[in-house]
Amino acid sequence: MLVVKKFGGSSVADKERIFNVANRCIEEYKAGNDVVVVLSAMGDTTDHLIGLANTINPKAKKRELDMLLTTGEQVSVSLMAMAMQALDVPAVSLNAFQVMMHSTSRYGNARFKRVDTERIQHELDSRKIVIVTGFQGVNKYDDITTLGRGGSDTTAVALAAALHADRCEIYTDVDGVYTADPRVVKNAKKLDTITYDEMLELASLGAKVLHNRSVEMAKKYNVELVVRSSLNRSEGTVVKEASKMEKLLVTGVAADSNTARISVIGVDDKPGIAFQIFDTLAKSYINVDIILQSVGREGTKDISFTVASEDLENALQVLDANKERLTIQKVTYNEDVAKLSIVGAGMMSNPGVAARMFEALYNSRVNINMISTSEIRITVLVAKNDIEKAMNAVHDGFGMAD
Amino acid sequence: MLVVKKFGGSSVADKERIFNVANRCIEEYKAGNDVVVVLSAMGDTTDHLIGLANTINPKAKKRELDMLLTTGEQVSVSLMAMAMQALDVPAVSLNAFQVMMHSTSRYGNARFKRVDTERIQHELDSRKIVIVTGFQGVNKYDDITTLGRGGSDTTAVALAAALHADRCEIYTDVDGVYTADPRVVKNAKKLDTITYDEMLELASLGAKVLHNRSVEMAKKYNVELVVRSSLNRSEGTVVKEASKMEKLLVTGVAADSNTARISVIGVDDKPGIAFQIFDTLAKSYINVDIILQSVGREGTKDISFTVASEDLENALQVLDANKERLTIQKVTYNEDVAKLSIVGAGMMSNPGVAARMFEALYNSRVNINMISTSEIRITVLVAKNDIEKAMNAVHDGFGMAD
Repeated sequence: MLVVKKFGGSSVADKERIFNVANRCIEEYKAGNDVVVVLSAMGDTTDHLIGLANTINPKAKKRELDMLLTTGEQVSVSLMAMAMQALDVPAVSLNAFQVMMHSTSRYGNARFKRVDTERIQHELDSRKIVIVTGFQGVNKYDDITTLGRGGSDTTAVALAAALHADRCEIYTDVDGVYTADPRVVKNAKKLDTITYDEMLELASLGAKVLHNRSVEMAKKYNVELVVRSSLNRSEGTVVKEASKMEKLLVTGVAADSNTARISVIGVDDKPGIAFQIFDTLAKSYINVDIILQSVGREGTKDISFTVASEDLENALQVLDANKERLTIQKVTYNEDVAKLSIVGAGMMSNPGVAARMFEALYNSRVNINMISTSEIRITVLVAKNDIEKAMNAVHDGFGMAD
Repeated sequence: MLVVKKFGGSSVADKERIFNVANRCIEEYKAGNDVVVVLSAMGDTTDHLIGLANTINPKAKKRELDMLLTTGEQVSVSLMAMAMQALDVPAVSLNAFQVMMHSTSRYGNARFKRVDTERIQHELDSRKIVIVTGFQGVNKYDDITTLGRGGSDTTAVALAAALHADRCEIYTDVDGVYTADPRVVKNAKKLDTITYDEMLELASLGAKVLHNRSVEMAKKYNVELVVRSSLNRSEGTVVKEASKMEKLLVTGVAADSNTARISVIGVDDKPGIAFQIFDTLAKSYINVDIILQSVGREGTKDISFTVASEDLENALQVLDANKERLTIQKVTYNEDVAKLSIVGAGMMSNPGVAARMFEALYNSRVNINMISTSEIRITVLVAKNDIEKAMNAVHDGFGMAD
C-alpha cells in the first residue's frame, strides 16, 4: 500500500515533534507500506522569512519572495530525513526541482499542472521513505513558485493523485472534521466521513481544517483524504465520494466572523446597474458574497452584499471613487456581522431544511439579516454578538450531537 | 564588459550590508557593464544550520546536510534581488538548479564539472543583475551538493570562466593580498599583483584570502581574479599569469600555526618502509606535509613529518595500531610548532634566497626545525613562540616593506 502523509509546520516545530512525526511515518513503513511524507516549513519560519523580506523591500517581487520562502520547507525535509536516518530507517528528502512539481507561472499563488513520479517511484522502489517539500512548485521558466497558504495540503493530494496512492492523510492539530467548532459548540461531534462537496463548503466557510484547493483536487482525482491528529491515534475523518456513504441531512455548521456588510443606497433602478457595481468591485479583486437587492424610494433600489473584513476599506474606497457613474446616493456598512452556515449533501432532496434552521434561530431570538443558499448549503448573516448562540441553536436544532 | 563579483557571508550579514553590496553592484551595472553576483549564506547561517542538524542527527548523511545548508545561499540571493529591486534596478536570483551548476557526486566536497550559461546569459541579455548562490552544485542524481568551505570563491571563478567574464572580483574584509599578515607584521604591504602560483602557495599556507581550488581553476581557465575589500574603495590585488608581470624575488611571507610535528623513531633502514608509513597514513585520510629523514642508531632511521593539528590524534592512533608492521620503535610528537613560508615566482631563477631567509632567522635567534622547498616556496618549521618574530625578521630581511 502507498500512503501519502502531510504534516503542517506546527508538527515539525522542534526536535521532539520532528521525531514524533518520524516515528509515526516509520510505523507505517515497518508495516510494509510505501510512505511519502509532505512537510511545511517549521513552526513560524514562513512568517519569519516574510518579516525578513519586509525589512529589505516591503514591495518585494513575488518571484523573489517565493525563492526566499521555499527554503523553509527544504530545511524541514532535510532535518526529517536526518531524524529518520538517526532511527536507522532509509529516507531521502526531495524539493520541487528534484520531484519536478510542474506548476503554473503565477508566483505566490501557483497551481500544479503536472507532477513527475519517476524520482519518487525510484526512491520508493529502493525502500526509502520519501520526504517532499510542500507548498512549492517549479514553473515553465524553471523558477520556484509557491501555492499560497495551506498549499502543502495541495502538494500532498497532487502527489497522492500522481502516484495513485491508496490514501492521503492530512495531519492537523484536531482529531478530524466536526459537526461544528468544538471550542464554540460543546457537544459538537466528530464526523467519521464527509463528502468532498460538503468539505468544500465547510472549508470555504472558514472551518480551516483543509485547504480548499486540495479538496477540489482530491475530488477531481478521487483521492481518499483522511483528516487526523498528529498528536493522538484517533481515526480521523475520511473525505470521499458521496455515493459511498449515506447522505446526511446536515453534516455540519460553520461560522465566519471575517465578514462585513455593505449597502449601496438609492441607485437607479435600471438594467445593468447591479452588474456595473459588482464588475467595478471585481476589477479591484474584491470578492463579493451574499447579495440582497431591495426596492428603494422613487424608482431607485438598494443593494446589500458582504465582503471579507480585510476588503472592506478597499471596497468603500472603490465605491466612493465611482459614486457618480454607479448612481450611488449613499453607502453604509456594518462590521458587526457574521455568517452562519449549515452544510449537508442530503439537503438537495429534502425540502424544509431552511425552515427548520430559521425556526431554531427564531427560538433563540437570533435575527437573520440576509440569506444565501447553494444546493447543499444555507448561509445566514447574523449579528456578530449572536454567532455562538446561533451555532449552538442550529447544532441542537438538527440534532447533530445525537 | 562582464564582471563577476563574489561577496562572502559577512558582507551580507544584515540589511545595511546587503544594501552596501547592492549599491556597489548597481554602480558597476550603471557603468554599462553586465554584472553577475555570487553570494555566500548570511553571517553565521551555515554554522547555525550545522548546529541544527547536529541536534537532530550528529551523524547526518552528507546528502541531507547539503540539502539543508544550501538553503542559506538561497536566502541571501533572494534578499539581494529584493534589495536591488528596492533600488529600482532589475535583478534576479538563481540557485544551482536554475543555473545548472553541474558538479561531481561527492556530497560536502563536490567539484564543478560544467556550468550551463544559457539562463544567466538570457537574464543578462534582458539587462538584469544576476545573483547566483555560491557554494552549491547539482550532481548527476539531481541532488544538491556543496563544495566545502570557501566554495563560493570557486563558484565565482567557475561562472567567470564559463561566461568568459572580463574580471572576477572576490570581495573580502581585507584590502587585498599582503606581503604578510598585517595583524602580525606591522609594515606589511599590499601587493598590486600576484601570480596564480604564488597565490596558490600562499592560500595553501594559510593566508586565508582565497580558496585554493578557486585559484587553481582561475589559473586553468586564465580568469583574472581581483581580491578587494567590500568595505572600502581600495583597488585590491590582481591575481594573474606570471608572464604579464615582473617576477618578484619574494612576494610574501605566510605563517601556519595549525600544524604538529610527528617523529617515528628507529624504523628498519630498508627500502619501502617510508612508503609504507605514508601509505598507511594516506589510507586514513591524513595529509602529511614537510618530511625529514635522518639516520638513526644501529641500522635504523628516524622519520619526521608534519600534519595538520586536527589530524594529530588520529595519526598517532594509526601509527600505534600499525607499530609492528611498520617496525616503529617509538613515536614522539610536538604541537608547539609553526610553519613559516616565503613565496615568490622569482625564486626559481635566483639562487641564494634560502640562505638569505636562514640568515634573517639566525640574526633573530629563531631556530629552524625542518625545511621544505618547492620551485617558488621555502618553508621552515619553527617553535610556535617564535613565529611572529620570525615573520617580521624574514619580512624585513627581504625588504618587503620597501
